[in-house]
Amino acid sequence: MTQDRIYTAALLVIGNEILSGRTQDANLAYLASGLNDLGIRMMEARVIRDDEQTIIADVNQLRGRYDYVFTTGGIGPTHDDITSAAVAKAFGLEFGRNPEAEAILLAHYKPEEVTEARMKMAETPVGAVLLDNPVSRAPGFQVENVFVLPGVPVIMQAIFEGFKHQLAGGTPVQSRTFHAYIPEGEIGGGLAKLQGLHPDVEIGSYPFIRQGKMGASLVIRSADTAAIERSTEGLKQLIQSLGGEAFEDGAEK
Amino acid sequence: MTQDRIYTAALLVIGNEILSGRTQDANLAYLASGLNDLGIRMMEARVIRDDEQTIIADVNQLRGRYDYVFTTGGIGPTHDDITSAAVAKAFGLEFGRNPEAEAILLAHYKPEEVTEARMKMAETPVGAVLLDNPVSRAPGFQVENVFVLPGVPVIMQAIFEGFKHQLAGGTPVQSRTFHAYIPEGEIGGGLAKLQGLHPDVEIGSYPFIRQGKMGASLVIRSADTAAIERSTEGLKQLIQSLGGEAFEDGAEK
Repeated sequence: MTQDRIYTAALLVIGNEILSGRTQDANLAYLASGLNDLGIRMMEARVIRDDEQTIIADVNQLRGRYDYVFTTGGIGPTHDDITSAAVAKAFGLEFGRNPEAEAILLAHYKPEEVTEARMKMAETPVGAVLLDNPVSRAPGFQVENVFVLPGVPVIMQAIFEGFKHQLAGGTPVQSRTFHAYIPEGEIGGGLAKLQGLHPDVEIGSYPFIRQGKMGASLVIRSADTAAIERSTEGLKQLIQSLGGEAFEDGAEK
Repeated sequence: MTQDRIYTAALLVIGNEILSGRTQDANLAYLASGLNDLGIRMMEARVIRDDEQTIIADVNQLRGRYDYVFTTGGIGPTHDDITSAAVAKAFGLEFGRNPEAEAILLAHYKPEEVTEARMKMAETPVGAVLLDNPVSRAPGFQVENVFVLPGVPVIMQAIFEGFKHQLAGGTPVQSRTFHAYIPEGEIGGGLAKLQGLHPDVEIGSYPFIRQGKMGASLVIRSADTAAIERSTEGLKQLIQSLGGEAFEDGAEK
């Protein structure tokens, strides 16, 4: 673990069904949270269509810009699953049947279940490192700093949990969250001053309405826990000075 | 309404809280679905941090590429709300108090409620067109083809519903969805052939597991309803030929 360097990641969510509004993505929140625990910061996510040129362009742009790129979606057995072939093209690699993946699938399916469609899931860029899928066997894969994962959340999560500890990361961002029934418009001025006094933390404000009362969730984030503690006192005082009460939250990020 | 042209849109979701995994975005699915009904296709979405240079670069890239760009998040009263100022910079416009927005807020708040933080929400790029906010009054705004909206879903939705009918669109994409208890690996080959026979529709396949049985939701999409009907018969026959039954779904997209 390096303390100084910030490790970064981007997510490419691939699938027309997310952009049509049919399916709600659930992978960004899961990966963002899991990566943060490893000291890797999600810097951006893109949701794109099942379009080869778009996948190639975005994979190449993002892999040059961040330490890690994750893709979700488009590696299943049907004709609209084009991610794996597009990633091969992005790297200028040959694409074809991966012997190791083939063996995994042939061991998993009964002979009468072995279809051309299913064996499509054994195709990877040549030289890709397989990522074990304990749920439905068809593996994800890694090429350099790009990790290609399926879109179905339960499978994506199982694969990610299997390899995540091999990722190099820095110091995780920690946070403390306080909720107060003070409208943002009343605490905003004081918060801006507090942020100015504590440039070593990131102070976020997120409005809420509960039981008809407006309030704000105030989140102090930093990789430096001492810095969080230093600014916490000021935040509590600010809330009190406005006649509010600070309710601290457990494990939010 | 033009029948020939495809109208396109992109969404820029702005907010560290989405990228930390703290908050689950709900605006993409809502806007994608609402725009589709207007004949406007969501082509991509990006989730980015509250970072001025990133907002400027992405607004400028996306507004040149698509008919419409929507941004959500970062237009509230606190110091981490930097979207409006960044959009002004993206367009090279002056940024300051918008007299119309100021009047709306001054009419809404009691004199003792008028804080500097709240009046920050009256700042827009000079010349921006305001978008009425019937929920909490602080308006969104439009500059050319860019629509700047808040991140809180209930407010974002109310603003969008107020102006959406002014957007020029094409023919909405229609769809028919059939669910069948056939694994994708068994229907994949036939689906690919069906897609080959019907290039005027887009056939999507989305796996599911229900009551322990694997199946696929098969979605035929096109702006041409006659083309959807033509391919539907082939899909039903394919499902039957594999011993399955096609359950049709109502209004999914």
